[in-house]
Amino acid sequence: MRITVWNENGHERFEEEIRALYPEGMHGCIANFYREAGHEVTTATLDMPEIGLPDELLDQTDVLVWWSHGMINEVPDEKVKKICDRVINDGMGLIVLHSGHASKIFRKLMGARSGHLKWRVAYPPEIDDKEIVWVVDQSHPIAQGIDEKFILEREEMYGEPTLIPAPDELVFLSWFSGGEVFRSGCTYKRGRGKIFYFRPGHESCPTFYDKNVQRVLLNAAEWAYTPPAKPYKYGWSAPVVE
Amino acid sequence: MRITVWNENGHERFEEEIRALYPEGMHGCIANFYREAGHEVTTATLDMPEIGLPDELLDQTDVLVWWSHGMINEVPDEKVKKICDRVINDGMGLIVLHSGHASKIFRKLMGARSGHLKWRVAYPPEIDDKEIVWVVDQSHPIAQGIDEKFILEREEMYGEPTLIPAPDELVFLSWFSGGEVFRSGCTYKRGRGKIFYFRPGHESCPTFYDKNVQRVLLNAAEWAYTPPAKPYKYGWSAPVVE
Amino acid sequence: MRITVWNENGHERFEEEIRALYPEGMHGCIANFYREAGHEVTTATLDMPEIGLPDELLDQTDVLVWWSHGMINEVPDEKVKKICDRVINDGMGLIVLHSGHASKIFRKLMGARSGHLKWRVAYPPEIDDKEIVWVVDQSHPIAQGIDEKFILEREEMYGEPTLIPAPDELVFLSWFSGGEVFRSGCTYKRGRGKIFYFRPGHESCPTFYDKNVQRVLLNAAEWAYTPPAKPYKYGWSAPVVE
Amino acid sequence: MRITVWNENGHERFEEEIRALYPEGMHGCIANFYREAGHEVTTATLDMPEIGLPDELLDQTDVLVWWSHGMINEVPDEKVKKICDRVINDGMGLIVLHSGHASKIFRKLMGARSGHLKWRVAYPPEIDDKEIVWVVDQSHPIAQGIDEKFILEREEMYGEPTLIPAPDELVFLSWFSGGEVFRSGCTYKRGRGKIFYFRPGHESCPTFYDKNVQRVLLNAAEWAYTPPAKPYKYGWSAPVVE
Repeated sequence: MRITVWNENGHERFEEEIRALYPEGMHGCIANFYREAGHEVTTATLDMPEIGLPDELLDQTDVLVWWSHGMINEVPDEKVKKICDRVINDGMGLIVLHSGHASKIFRKLMGARSGHLKWRVAYPPEIDDKEIVWVVDQSHPIAQGIDEKFILEREEMYGEPTLIPAPDELVFLSWFSGGEVFRSGCTYKRGRGKIFYFRPGHESCPTFYDKNVQRVLLNAAEWAYTPPAKPYKYGWSAPVVE
Repeated sequence: MRITVWNENGHERFEEEIRALYPEGMHGCIANFYREAGHEVTTATLDMPEIGLPDELLDQTDVLVWWSHGMINEVPDEKVKKICDRVINDGMGLIVLHSGHASKIFRKLMGARSGHLKWRVAYPPEIDDKEIVWVVDQSHPIAQGIDEKFILEREEMYGEPTLIPAPDELVFLSWFSGGEVFRSGCTYKRGRGKIFYFRPGHESCPTFYDKNVQRVLLNAAEWAYTPPAKPYKYGWSAPVVE
Repeated sequence: MRITVWNENGHERFEEEIRALYPEGMHGCIANFYREAGHEVTTATLDMPEIGLPDELLDQTDVLVWWSHGMINEVPDEKVKKICDRVINDGMGLIVLHSGHASKIFRKLMGARSGHLKWRVAYPPEIDDKEIVWVVDQSHPIAQGIDEKFILEREEMYGEPTLIPAPDELVFLSWFSGGEVFRSGCTYKRGRGKIFYFRPGHESCPTFYDKNVQRVLLNAAEWAYTPPAKPYKYGWSAPVVE
Repeated sequence: MRITVWNENGHERFEEEIRALYPEGMHGCIANFYREAGHEVTTATLDMPEIGLPDELLDQTDVLVWWSHGMINEVPDEKVKKICDRVINDGMGLIVLHSGHASKIFRKLMGARSGHLKWRVAYPPEIDDKEIVWVVDQSHPIAQGIDEKFILEREEMYGEPTLIPAPDELVFLSWFSGGEVFRSGCTYKRGRGKIFYFRPGHESCPTFYDKNVQRVLLNAAEWAYTPPAKPYKYGWSAPVVE
């Protein structure tokens, strides 16, 4: 499968502590475990020409993995449109990570203010929340190989209520030590394309090194893949029967 | 309940046959049966200043009923944003009729290319499709008072596949004499607001005079109403527990 | 609305501490706030003839509220069938409370082993879990009048994963101090009938005196009510069109 | 994958015309295309000892394909329980065909009167309904390789409304020449197991020889497969955090 991992790559460039945690960027860390699983992986970042996503690359991408945060307004609208078109029309899979909930692409595909949620990140990090991610959909392909739960010792808190549409499938729920809960693994379909939102993954936490998180993201890419097909027809149609 | 019925009102202005069918416009016909049921109803059309929807009116609207077709690009983007904000943030109900599937507001709230579907309208109208609307969710408030089905002798055909997201609830399914089917009554939620899409209602057909259609739309307004409430809080949050 | 509140009424009869907490039984406490809201309420308990639910009463019940726990096998199968028939065929609303998840009626209607979940109740009660119930579906009628969350200082813990089917709508999520989460407010439809499962309500906790819990259960009865209608037809059918 | 195809095998034994159409039984026809796709297939019929489904076979079955009709009461309750346990606890996939909607196993897993629907089968068969099966979920794995629709020239009609629960996913919708529609491809999950209901497949029609039907059933087996896993824990649980 041809996977493209996109990262805003701002924290890694501008903050020494984040760079120390992810010397190759979060995209580099994520690309590594996809590559080890045998996928053909490209990484792309905001600071590259065309934000690293020229149309030819998008046209060759089966699943796009997306991490973004505060620099989201630097993503050009025409690229947002191209990405959404690839999902809806062509079935490109999309995996949106953590603060990507507020990205232009996810907001556009959700049709809601998906960036509205509670959050809390702590400095110093030692007092961050503990997150416990529970499986609620045991038969879901994305949950295979995951025990009933896994624990992330330090993560940013995201809390309900949030303004996402009800997911087609709810795969994971998160518990936070501060008293909050969150729908942490949500699937959606838009047109021919499948979308998975996964909550964990704050830049200051070693989340993408976690074996359970990696298992989830490997499963999610398999799940999100839709084989190419000739497009269905829309518009004026002759009767099928007389 | 304060209901605002919006209509593009183009066909009625520019096409004599449509004007003959709906001398007060489709909005006038729709407003009438809502008024008879005791609601406080305002009508608004594209040709009015601010497309008839000044912010003060939208702020006083509990449920907005929307009919639009080919003039949809004349609806200003800031008005689209205002309407979507009212739905998502404040819980204004929204009932989208027929070709309103392709409106800017519905496409934005769906996050998909909801305008993509099969269609067929016949001239002369005598050879239009017959549509049979079947109830599939018997306990849904919008289906109360409706027998297992109702028949519209002439309607434009809309056919699957379409690019809407899977509805939260599927209330009606339509059968067409040309061999097509369509998910004709679909509910969605976005933030605090509830949305109902209802398929029938082509301008050249007497659909809004049909008693079953009127029953559906009366039920839908009741269903879509969300009482006002102080908004939930988003953003940084202190822990609930220590 | 005619509401019947059924309770196993075992803990209240056999355990002094529970009787001290609910001197009229949990059913008495629940009946009181439904009555104060103007409903016509009957209470029924396991120790009554026909478990307090003669067919004539069930036939006159719009919404049945159900609390049961360990004595569930004493409910006769023909009564289980009658209750499920009333839901599916006639649209009687059903509100299943707390340990009622393991009742014969709920298991039968769910088609899954809804009794399988994690639980923890503490003796002495002082060390019970704290439960925080979060709203996730802001526009749902059952959540109206509820702030973003409410806190139950002491409750039995129920934890995911559980073997319920994915709910049609997820209204509430619970957080527990021991690290667990649970889908605490779930709606289902079966045939003409609507079902709401609500998690809180352990016999040793003053949960049914909580104003938020009462608001939820009042809302739930309104939501679960389906007006009577002549039944749809099944079986052999002549063609609608030639 | 280890697939077991179960068939009541009554029509084929007792009716000459059906035997002429399916000389190896419908189970034989179905087994053939699964075998050709490389699966390890066993067939089983009602007239075999233990209805051909000894526990050892069920324990070795990854996906069970089920066709039944009027002899369903001859399936022993303990076998029904065993099959449902395999689905819910162990994740055995289940594909229920056509009149299997009324089987004990499907009714039990649905928790509703799934056998209630409209139907019409014609003698002589030449005047049976035409069925057009439309794809509504374009990204669903079960729909891959299927064009927007396929046509079955003769089939028994099943019509809405029906008393199934709303499916988790609606993959196909059917149109019938008599004016009816039906939710023809529905997915459900129960516990660890995945269930697909597929409407077409009347014994008097050559449906299981249809290449599109075969493609659907091949896809469905892949979709329904859940890899084995150690069971999650239920019951009393120690706190995860102090």
